[in-house]
Amino acid sequence: MRHSAPEGEMSKTASRLDRFLLSTLRKMLGPAPLDLALPDCREPDSNLRPSVATIRFADRQTLIRVLRNPEMGFGDGFTDGDITIEGDFVSALEVIYETRRTRPGRRGLLSRWLLWAQRNTLNGSRRNIRRHYDLGNDFYKLWLDDEMQYTCAYFPDERAELEQAQLAKLDHVCRKIWLQAGETVVEAGCGWGGLALHMARNYGVNVKAFNISHEQIAYARERARREGLSNQVEFVEDDYRNIRGRFDAFISVGMLEHVGLEHYLELGNVIRRAIGGSGRGLLHFIGRNFDRPLSLWIKRRIFPGGHPPALRSVMDIFEPQDFAVLDVENLRMHYARTLEYWLERFERSYEQVQSQYGPQFARMWRLYLAGSIAGFRTGTMQLFQVVFAGPQCKTIPWNRAYLYEGAEPRQSDEPWIRAIS
Amino acid sequence: MRHSAPEGEMSKTASRLDRFLLSTLRKMLGPAPLDLALPDCREPDSNLRPSVATIRFADRQTLIRVLRNPEMGFGDGFTDGDITIEGDFVSALEVIYETRRTRPGRRGLLSRWLLWAQRNTLNGSRRNIRRHYDLGNDFYKLWLDDEMQYTCAYFPDERAELEQAQLAKLDHVCRKIWLQAGETVVEAGCGWGGLALHMARNYGVNVKAFNISHEQIAYARERARREGLSNQVEFVEDDYRNIRGRFDAFISVGMLEHVGLEHYLELGNVIRRAIGGSGRGLLHFIGRNFDRPLSLWIKRRIFPGGHPPALRSVMDIFEPQDFAVLDVENLRMHYARTLEYWLERFERSYEQVQSQYGPQFARMWRLYLAGSIAGFRTGTMQLFQVVFAGPQCKTIPWNRAYLYEGAEPRQSDEPWIRAIS
Repeated sequence: MRHSAPEGEMSKTASRLDRFLLSTLRKMLGPAPLDLALPDCREPDSNLRPSVATIRFADRQTLIRVLRNPEMGFGDGFTDGDITIEGDFVSALEVIYETRRTRPGRRGLLSRWLLWAQRNTLNGSRRNIRRHYDLGNDFYKLWLDDEMQYTCAYFPDERAELEQAQLAKLDHVCRKIWLQAGETVVEAGCGWGGLALHMARNYGVNVKAFNISHEQIAYARERARREGLSNQVEFVEDDYRNIRGRFDAFISVGMLEHVGLEHYLELGNVIRRAIGGSGRGLLHFIGRNFDRPLSLWIKRRIFPGGHPPALRSVMDIFEPQDFAVLDVENLRMHYARTLEYWLERFERSYEQVQSQYGPQFARMWRLYLAGSIAGFRTGTMQLFQVVFAGPQCKTIPWNRAYLYEGAEPRQSDEPWIRAIS
Repeated sequence: MRHSAPEGEMSKTASRLDRFLLSTLRKMLGPAPLDLALPDCREPDSNLRPSVATIRFADRQTLIRVLRNPEMGFGDGFTDGDITIEGDFVSALEVIYETRRTRPGRRGLLSRWLLWAQRNTLNGSRRNIRRHYDLGNDFYKLWLDDEMQYTCAYFPDERAELEQAQLAKLDHVCRKIWLQAGETVVEAGCGWGGLALHMARNYGVNVKAFNISHEQIAYARERARREGLSNQVEFVEDDYRNIRGRFDAFISVGMLEHVGLEHYLELGNVIRRAIGGSGRGLLHFIGRNFDRPLSLWIKRRIFPGGHPPALRSVMDIFEPQDFAVLDVENLRMHYARTLEYWLERFERSYEQVQSQYGPQFARMWRLYLAGSIAGFRTGTMQLFQVVFAGPQCKTIPWNRAYLYEGAEPRQSDEPWIRAIS
């Protein structure tokens, strides 16, 4: 409790104001099973028992900030320690997400300013990406898996461990684009190099992998050297727009969210130039049921320049190139599970994060991870894997059974039945 | 040969004109391995050996009709017997499709007039559908499978028989929306009732199935009665827009092509009203890599009001309802295979079709079936199955492995790991 209430009339007025502010927030939240509290004032019962959690505001100013700008006010208030959640943290966020589902936020001036300020020009992308991914490999090592996969895992079994599931994800995407030994692959946005090295090591392909995060590329190169894969995998510290050369397949896991809608046509051209009309590719990305601005708080504090697209927008990449969409899989619930592992490990290292990066940073990341779980659980976020092929691609697998049977893909380039001679 | 060439100067001029017309067509076709011929005039060698086929025009007028309006001229010329193809029929059409891929046809006045004249109002749909599907059940029985499935089959094995593959398709779609005994399903555009009866018989669900083709509904009802399934399946002769009541799942196989882009928002509303926020559904339809008008000839002679949509357009159904796309599978090559079976059977009954429906009708359908094979082989047509679910659907299968393992879907409504207590 930061401010103690003054005595007498002042106190009564203050308390009436506090009740008014809390009930205003209640109206914004709708019928959500949450209790709301200020130090000396608890909002009247929500009538929705059992309540999932209590959201406690340290003072009136914090509550007013939330009322004026819910996303920024809540995110920053939590980061500063002025908002605490008592009860099930993730469930409380789920409730808030569910409530906000039918009440799309207004897209204010700040949001439009951010779109401009964080636009993904060549320099803008570098700045945006570095802010998130160059936090230091040591930070991510605290809570990621051994492969340093900072993207959705694939759990063949719901109870698989994170390490297994990240390896399964790597195989899932490689098999989805039916990699064959000796082929060439270009990867856009390669993270710490886990996928590129896995493709080279386990599928015998040659990989050229692009990334603009300096820290990640350095880490990936060192790993390639240590594993003796430097002659098979080339890590290039450059933007996807500078991809040159011809490849059999294009792959990108977790980059599209950072590309920005206005660059999808350009990305399509880059892919077409890379794989021609006969190649194939895969995009793995966080998406939405329909396009809307990312949470302002996430956009300002976590992912500058980020936008998870709706499938409709992604068609800007494929349509002008006459690429055929072969397969779309929604792995939203696998991302919720992945994030549960990350948050669990993050919590285990919480003391260390706090002492190394400060309590604000620690709280901010706790909110970001828990909020992401809530987003994927409630379906306000989706995770799409899209497989596509050029119009002249002749080696498309006959169906998807091979993905699940551990078999080789049966391909369809066998002579067709000629019904008329 | 219909017209014999006159002698002397006249003949020389005529022959010069013919050569000019043929070489004009050659320019339109581009570098296609096809020979072109008029009765007394063969177009100079295409330099692309081996040539796949010779396209022979009975007279100059037919050739001029093709030059003035390629789609209608070719389709009607073939129907009238004034154009013949010597050599591999389907391959010749494939070559033409490939050539036209990069040369999108102009969208003329006639095309726009057709859009208006064939618009899918309640009455328009009835007229459009009856023209194709009320040709008589006996006609379709000649070349369809026992289940009377007039949509793309699913071949678990490329060499499966058509009968097996159509049954496999029925199971594939039922399993994709994880039907459970006792549930209720609404089907829009139920054909001859094969899927509705299969769902009731094999999955123990109650089905309400809509269709505006009188002949098909009569056939379906009779079958339900004969199989003793009338209390489980209700066949309704009505438009999908008149679907009322609440169901667990929505399914539509091969109807979307007839709905028309301008009705997708409405269809989305119909689906939402039928399954609410917690249901799920499947759409199976012929689609495209990007939206463009259907061949004029197909639109006038075969499928009035038809339009195979791009995935982008289909999002008009899902986005306003906050439906999540869970799975998209492209079965284009399965449709090519299905059509090969149909054409093969059609050819076996050719004499009968000719004597019952006339030689024009027989040729028209031969062109339509062969042209469709070419369309799916070359990828100018796609076949999409899209699975979707409402935002409150809580029973989504954990992954797609169960589809291929013959197992029950493992669902994700088990308690989530609560990472923070």
